[in-house]
Amino acid sequence: MEQKFIQSLYDAHQRAPRMPEPALVCNWLEGLLGVLFPEFSNHRYRSHREFTQHFGDLQLELFRILQSLDDRHGVVPEHVEHQFMERLPFVRDLLLQDADAILAGDPAAVSLTEVIRTYPGFYAIAVYRLAHEFQQLQIPLIPRILTEHAHSKTGIDIHPAARIGPGFCIDHGTGVVIGETCDIGHQVKIYQGVTLGALSVRKDLARTKRHPTIEDRAIIYAGATILGGDTVIGHDTIIGGNVWITKSVPPHCRIYYTGYIRQQEAAGKE
Amino acid sequence: MEQKFIQSLYDAHQRAPRMPEPALVCNWLEGLLGVLFPEFSNHRYRSHREFTQHFGDLQLELFRILQSLDDRHGVVPEHVEHQFMERLPFVRDLLLQDADAILAGDPAAVSLTEVIRTYPGFYAIAVYRLAHEFQQLQIPLIPRILTEHAHSKTGIDIHPAARIGPGFCIDHGTGVVIGETCDIGHQVKIYQGVTLGALSVRKDLARTKRHPTIEDRAIIYAGATILGGDTVIGHDTIIGGNVWITKSVPPHCRIYYTGYIRQQEAAGKE
Amino acid sequence: MEQKFIQSLYDAHQRAPRMPEPALVCNWLEGLLGVLFPEFSNHRYRSHREFTQHFGDLQLELFRILQSLDDRHGVVPEHVEHQFMERLPFVRDLLLQDADAILAGDPAAVSLTEVIRTYPGFYAIAVYRLAHEFQQLQIPLIPRILTEHAHSKTGIDIHPAARIGPGFCIDHGTGVVIGETCDIGHQVKIYQGVTLGALSVRKDLARTKRHPTIEDRAIIYAGATILGGDTVIGHDTIIGGNVWITKSVPPHCRIYYTGYIRQQEAAGKE
Amino acid sequence: MEQKFIQSLYDAHQRAPRMPEPALVCNWLEGLLGVLFPEFSNHRYRSHREFTQHFGDLQLELFRILQSLDDRHGVVPEHVEHQFMERLPFVRDLLLQDADAILAGDPAAVSLTEVIRTYPGFYAIAVYRLAHEFQQLQIPLIPRILTEHAHSKTGIDIHPAARIGPGFCIDHGTGVVIGETCDIGHQVKIYQGVTLGALSVRKDLARTKRHPTIEDRAIIYAGATILGGDTVIGHDTIIGGNVWITKSVPPHCRIYYTGYIRQQEAAGKE
Amino acid sequence: MEQKFIQSLYDAHQRAPRMPEPALVCNWLEGLLGVLFPEFSNHRYRSHREFTQHFGDLQLELFRILQSLDDRHGVVPEHVEHQFMERLPFVRDLLLQDADAILAGDPAAVSLTEVIRTYPGFYAIAVYRLAHEFQQLQIPLIPRILTEHAHSKTGIDIHPAARIGPGFCIDHGTGVVIGETCDIGHQVKIYQGVTLGALSVRKDLARTKRHPTIEDRAIIYAGATILGGDTVIGHDTIIGGNVWITKSVPPHCRIYYTGYIRQQEAAGKE
Amino acid sequence: MEQKFIQSLYDAHQRAPRMPEPALVCNWLEGLLGVLFPEFSNHRYRSHREFTQHFGDLQLELFRILQSLDDRHGVVPEHVEHQFMERLPFVRDLLLQDADAILAGDPAAVSLTEVIRTYPGFYAIAVYRLAHEFQQLQIPLIPRILTEHAHSKTGIDIHPAARIGPGFCIDHGTGVVIGETCDIGHQVKIYQGVTLGALSVRKDLARTKRHPTIEDRAIIYAGATILGGDTVIGHDTIIGGNVWITKSVPPHCRIYYTGYIRQQEAAGKE
Repeated sequence: MEQKFIQSLYDAHQRAPRMPEPALVCNWLEGLLGVLFPEFSNHRYRSHREFTQHFGDLQLELFRILQSLDDRHGVVPEHVEHQFMERLPFVRDLLLQDADAILAGDPAAVSLTEVIRTYPGFYAIAVYRLAHEFQQLQIPLIPRILTEHAHSKTGIDIHPAARIGPGFCIDHGTGVVIGETCDIGHQVKIYQGVTLGALSVRKDLARTKRHPTIEDRAIIYAGATILGGDTVIGHDTIIGGNVWITKSVPPHCRIYYTGYIRQQEAAGKE
Repeated sequence: MEQKFIQSLYDAHQRAPRMPEPALVCNWLEGLLGVLFPEFSNHRYRSHREFTQHFGDLQLELFRILQSLDDRHGVVPEHVEHQFMERLPFVRDLLLQDADAILAGDPAAVSLTEVIRTYPGFYAIAVYRLAHEFQQLQIPLIPRILTEHAHSKTGIDIHPAARIGPGFCIDHGTGVVIGETCDIGHQVKIYQGVTLGALSVRKDLARTKRHPTIEDRAIIYAGATILGGDTVIGHDTIIGGNVWITKSVPPHCRIYYTGYIRQQEAAGKE
Repeated sequence: MEQKFIQSLYDAHQRAPRMPEPALVCNWLEGLLGVLFPEFSNHRYRSHREFTQHFGDLQLELFRILQSLDDRHGVVPEHVEHQFMERLPFVRDLLLQDADAILAGDPAAVSLTEVIRTYPGFYAIAVYRLAHEFQQLQIPLIPRILTEHAHSKTGIDIHPAARIGPGFCIDHGTGVVIGETCDIGHQVKIYQGVTLGALSVRKDLARTKRHPTIEDRAIIYAGATILGGDTVIGHDTIIGGNVWITKSVPPHCRIYYTGYIRQQEAAGKE
Repeated sequence: MEQKFIQSLYDAHQRAPRMPEPALVCNWLEGLLGVLFPEFSNHRYRSHREFTQHFGDLQLELFRILQSLDDRHGVVPEHVEHQFMERLPFVRDLLLQDADAILAGDPAAVSLTEVIRTYPGFYAIAVYRLAHEFQQLQIPLIPRILTEHAHSKTGIDIHPAARIGPGFCIDHGTGVVIGETCDIGHQVKIYQGVTLGALSVRKDLARTKRHPTIEDRAIIYAGATILGGDTVIGHDTIIGGNVWITKSVPPHCRIYYTGYIRQQEAAGKE
Repeated sequence: MEQKFIQSLYDAHQRAPRMPEPALVCNWLEGLLGVLFPEFSNHRYRSHREFTQHFGDLQLELFRILQSLDDRHGVVPEHVEHQFMERLPFVRDLLLQDADAILAGDPAAVSLTEVIRTYPGFYAIAVYRLAHEFQQLQIPLIPRILTEHAHSKTGIDIHPAARIGPGFCIDHGTGVVIGETCDIGHQVKIYQGVTLGALSVRKDLARTKRHPTIEDRAIIYAGATILGGDTVIGHDTIIGGNVWITKSVPPHCRIYYTGYIRQQEAAGKE
Repeated sequence: MEQKFIQSLYDAHQRAPRMPEPALVCNWLEGLLGVLFPEFSNHRYRSHREFTQHFGDLQLELFRILQSLDDRHGVVPEHVEHQFMERLPFVRDLLLQDADAILAGDPAAVSLTEVIRTYPGFYAIAVYRLAHEFQQLQIPLIPRILTEHAHSKTGIDIHPAARIGPGFCIDHGTGVVIGETCDIGHQVKIYQGVTLGALSVRKDLARTKRHPTIEDRAIIYAGATILGGDTVIGHDTIIGGNVWITKSVPPHCRIYYTGYIRQQEAAGKE
C-alpha cells in the first residue's frame, strides 16, 4: 500500500506542469531592487561598465525566467522582457514618490535611506509595482510569486492586479490586504491590518469589480475593513481604525469607531 | 565581572537539553512538501527509482530528527516514523480537499497550481496538518517548531493540537490565530486577522477546552475575534469582519458589525 | 534613453552613503542570541575556551559593523561596543523575566525551552531589547535594521525607541505595532493585532510623545487599537479585543467591545 | 570580428556532445571510497539503515551518471550499474591486499589506517581498480575521468585498461605512468617516476600490446623506464632506479644503473 | 613574547602589497576555458544571447582582476584587456592544433573530446598559452599564478615566458619542466619527466637565454634532461628516455641511453 | 549476498577509529599559512584586534583538531598546542631563510612575494616545517595528513620526520621524494625528480637510518637518485641530473652523468 502511495505521488510529479522556480524569481527580484535603489544593495560598483554588465545579467535572468514558463501560456519572452524594461524608469519614479510620501507621513522616519532600506511598507509597494507590470503583460504565476514573497516578508498582501496611484503610503503594514480589483487614487495612506476586500466570493464574480475604490488623499487607519466593488471612499476622507464599511463614504468625511462599554472594577481582584 | 557573565552563559549552555535542530526540521518539512505536492518542488524526477530513493532519504531524515530528541521524552523513533508515514496518504487527501476549497472560494484564484504554490493559507494548513500528526503521537517540540515556521512565513498561527475538519480555507491569512483546543468542522472558511482564542489564560486551565468550536460551513470574516471554550459558532453561520464574540451563535445566523459615527468635514482642511 | 536610465541608476549608486550590510547585522544578531540563550543555538560547546573565543568573535563582529557606519554619524566603535557589552547581563535578565511572564501567561506553553525557542513574541522582545540599547547609544540605522528583521519574521513591529518594562508578554503577536514614544510598565501583556499608535502623524511632531502610556499589569486583547501621546491605560486595566481607544482609561477598568447585529437566516440559502 | 569569434564559440558549444559532468563523477567516486573504506570517510553512521540508505544514494547517483552518457554509446544504465555493483566486493578484497602490500613494504608506514587515509599510492590504485571495472564494461569517458582525477591528485597516471594483479604497491608515486596494455602480475612493487610505456606511438598500433609485461614479485625502483609490448620483466627481478629498458629481462635478475664521472674540485670555488 | 610575534605578523600584513586573489584568477581561468572549449564546460547555453552575456561577464572579471594589481606596476586594465581579447582567436587556433597533435600521437586516445576534457598535457598547454599572452603584455604575477595552478593540477611546469610553436604535444606530463627562455619549434613532442632547464642559476643571468632550443618535430622521451641556453636539439631528432644532455644535437639524430649492469641472481634469495 | 557485503562495510565503519578530519586539518593549515605570510592570505586586516582574534581562532581550531585524535594516542591537547605555538616564530624565521634561498637561486624569480605566493617548492617546505613540529611532538596522523596535502598540490613528498637545515631550496619540485631519516644540512638545493631514498625497505629497518645525509651547500640536479642510510653527500658537492648514487661522495665533488649513444639518421624517415 505504501508503494501505491509513492507511485501516486510519482505520477503526480510526472503530470505536473513546468513553472518558473520561485527561488530564482525572488533572487532576480532582489537583484533588480538592488539596482533600482542603492539602499537595497550591498554592492558598491567600481565602474559604470560593471554596473551595465550587471544590469545585462539581470535582463538575461528575466529572459530565462520567462522562458521557463509553460509553453501553453503563449508568452513571447523577448517581447515581455522588452516591454517590462521599458516600464522600469516609470516604475522607479512612482516608487520614489511612494518613498517621499512615507517619509513625509511618519514622524519617526529620519531619512529616505531608512525608509527604502528598512520600511516593510515601501518594500511591499515596490514589489507590487514590479509585479503589476507583469500582470499588465498577462504573465501567469510570476506576479503572484512576487507579491506572495513580499507578503511573507512583510505581512502585506497586495494583489498584483490592483491599481494604485502615486504617492501610496503603507505604515507598519502587517495584515494589510488589497484585493484584485481595488482602485486606489493619489497620495492614499493606509495602516496595518487594513482590508480592502470583497463582499462576496462567488466564483462567477471573477473579473468583475469586487473590491472598493479609494479616492485621492484618503487615509484609512489600522484594522479598518472596507468591502465591496461599489464601495467608494471619497477623496480626503479619513476612515478610523477598526471600522467596518460596506457602503460608500462621500469626500471629506471622518468615520469614527464607537461602541464599547467601560466597567470599573474593584481594585486588585483577578 | 564580564568573565563572570561569560561563565554564567557557558554554564547555561552546558545545562541546556538536547533538541532537534530547527533548520534540519524545517528543511525536512520543505522536502516532504515537495514530495507530496509537485507544485512545491523544483525538482523533476527522471525515474520512479529516483523518486523512491528520495522518499527513503526523507524517511531516514525524519528518523534522525526523532533520534535527536532528548531521551527524557521516551520517544521510540522507529514507531513514530512508522505511524507518521502510515498517515501521510490520509493527510494528503485532506490537503487536496483544502486546496479545492480555497480554489472554489476565491474568484481571484486561477488554478490549483497557483493555490498550492503561492497561497499562504494553503501552506499554513499543510504544515498544521503534518504538525498535528506529530502532536497526536505526543512528540515534543517538533510540532511547535513546524507551526511557528509556518507562522513566520505566513503570519498564520495554528496551534498543532487544534482539530480542523476537511475543506478548510484560510484566505490571505495574516494575523490568523487558532488556539490549542479549537474544534473546527467541515468546509469552514476564515479570513485574515481572525482570532479563535481563549477568554482566560489561567495556567491551571491547560488541557481544558479554552477555545471555540466552529461548526461546518461557518464563514468568519477578516478581523473577527471569537473567544472561549464554550463558544460555539453554529453551522452555516457567517461572522462579519471585526466582530468580537464571546458567546455562542446559533446555526444559519449572520452577525454584522455596527457602531461608527460619520462626520462630514469642511473640505480641504487638515 | 535606456542608457540614460542606467546612467542615472549608476549615479544614484555612486552617491549612496555607506551603511552596515543588513545580512551581516542580522547574522550577528542570531549569533548573539545563540550565545545568550542556548535554546537559540544549535552548537554545543566542548570547552569554556571555545565559548570565550566565540564570544570574542561576536564582539569583534560588532566592532566591524560599527566601523562600517558612515563617518558622518560620529560613532566611536570602541566606546559603543564597550557600552553595549556592559549592558548585556542586564538585558539578559530582563529577557528571562519576559520569558517567565510568557510561560506563566499561556496555558499552552509547556516549558521555558519551548517559549524561548519557538515563541515569536519572545523573539520580538529579545530583538527589541537589544536594538533599544543601540538606540540609547544613538547609533543610526542598526536599531531599525534589527527590529525590522524581527518584524519580518514575527509580524511584530516594535520601534526600538519605545520604553518597555520587565516581564513584558506578547502572545501570538502577528500585527502588533508599538510606536516610537510608547511607555510600557511592568508585567504588561498584549495580544496579536494590538496597535499602540499615534493620533496624528504631522512631521513636526517628531520627538514629541505621540504614543500611549500603558501602566503596570495592563492587559490588551487582540486587535485593540490605542492611540495618542496623552492616552494612559491605567494599571491593572484590561482592554478587550478589537476596541478602539483614543482617550485615557483609569486603573482597574475593563473595556468591552460591543455593537453588532445578529440576523437569523432561512437555512441553506446563500 | 569579435562577434564572429563569439559566434564560432557558440556554435562549438551547440555542437558539443553530452557528457557526464566530471565534478559529479569525482564526487560520486569520493563517496564510494568513503563507503568502501571508513578511513576515507568523515561520516560516522549511527545506524545500519543510515548506511544502507547512503549506499542506495550512491547506487542511484551512479545510475544518473550512466544516464548522462551520450545515447550514441549504447550504454544500458541498469545493466552496467548492476554489473559494477556485483564486482565491488571483489574489488574491495583486491584493494585490501594492495594496502597490506604497501604496509608491509614501507618501514615508515605505521598502520593500515595511515596507508589507506594518506598514501597517494593506495589512492591511485583504488581509483584505477574502480575505473578498470567501467573499462571492462566498455563505458566511455568515465574510466578516463576517474584515473585523470587520481593522476591530478597523486601524480600517478594508470591507464584504466591496464591489467594489474593483487598486492600491487606504488610508493610515493609521483610521475608513475602505466600504459594501456601493461600486464602486471602479483605482488609487484614500483616507485616514483617509473614509466611502463610504449616504444612506438604509431596511431595504427591502437589496441595492440604496446606496453610491457611485469611478472610476479618484480620490483622497479624510482625513475626506471621500461618500454615495449614485447618487453617482459621476469618474476622476482629487480630493476634499479633510473634504468632504461627496452628488452626483456629474465626472472631473478638485478639490473643496476651505471655510468657517471666523478670529478674532485678545488674546494670553495663556484 | 607571543604578543611581540603576533605584532610582527600583523605589521607584515600591513606592509604587504595588494595582489590579485589567486582563487579569483583561477576561477576566471576555468570560466574562460569553458567558453573556449565546450569540452571543459558543464553548462549548455540555451541562446546566443546567454553566451554573449556570459562572455561579457568573463571580460569584466578580467578587467577587475587587472584593476586589483598594485598601482606600482603601471598596468592600464582597459588596454591589457583589449589586447588579450584580441589574441584569443589566435590562441584558440593554436590550442586546436595542439589537441590534434596529441590525438594523432597517442594510440590510446579515442577522440578530441577525450583529449581536451581529460588529458593533463592539453590542460597545461592551454593554461600556458593563455598565461604567455599576459606575460607578453608584461603583466606581473598573473602569468605565474596561472601556470602554477596548472602545475599543481598536472605536475607540468611551463614557465609563462617560454616560447612554444604550434602542434605541441605533452604526453602524461607529470614532472615536465620547461624553463623561462626555452624556444620550442613546431610539432614537438615531449613525455613525462622531461626537463628543459638551465646549466647555471647565477642570478645575474636573469633575462639571458639559459634554456635550450628544441627544433621542429623533435621528440623527447620520458625523464630526459636537456640543459643550457646554447643547447639546440635539431629538427627531427629523437632524444631517448632518461638521457642527460648539455650539448647540442644535430638534426635527424637518435640519442639512446645506455649503461647498466645485469646480474643474474640465485632464485628466491633476498 | 549484496546485503552481506553492505553489512560487512557497515561493520568496518563501526570498528573504525576516530581521526581528525583531513579537510579541517588542511583548512587550518591554509589559515595558519595566511597568518604567517600575508602573501598566502587574501584578507586585509583592518585592526590589530581583528588579527589577534583571528589568531586566537586558529589556536582554538588547532586545539579542536588535537582533541579529535583517538584517545589511545595519549595526546594532551593543551600541551601540544602550547608547544607548537611556542615554536612558530622559529619556524617562520626558518621559512624566510628558505624563501631567500629560493629567490637567490632562481634567475627567473622576480620577488619574495612571487616566491612565497606561487612557488610550489616554498609551499612544500613550509608545510613540511610545520608538520615536522607535530612529528617532534609525537602527534600521530596529522603530520602525514599535512605533508600528503602538500604532496598532492606540489608533487613534492617530504616525510615529516626528515631533518632539514635552514635555507633549503627546492626548484620546480615535482617528483621530489625525501625519506623519513634523511639529514639535510644548510643551504642545500635540490631540483625536480630528486629521490633521497632507502636501499632496502625491510620492515624491521623502521626507525633505523635508511636515508642519506646531505651536507651543507650540496646541490642535487633533476632526476638524481641518492639511496641508503650510510650514504653521505659531502658539503659543496654537486650531483648532476639523472645520476644514481648508493655510496658516499666526498665534499667539493661534481658527479656527472654519462652513457648514451648518438646515432645519425637518414633525414626524413620515420
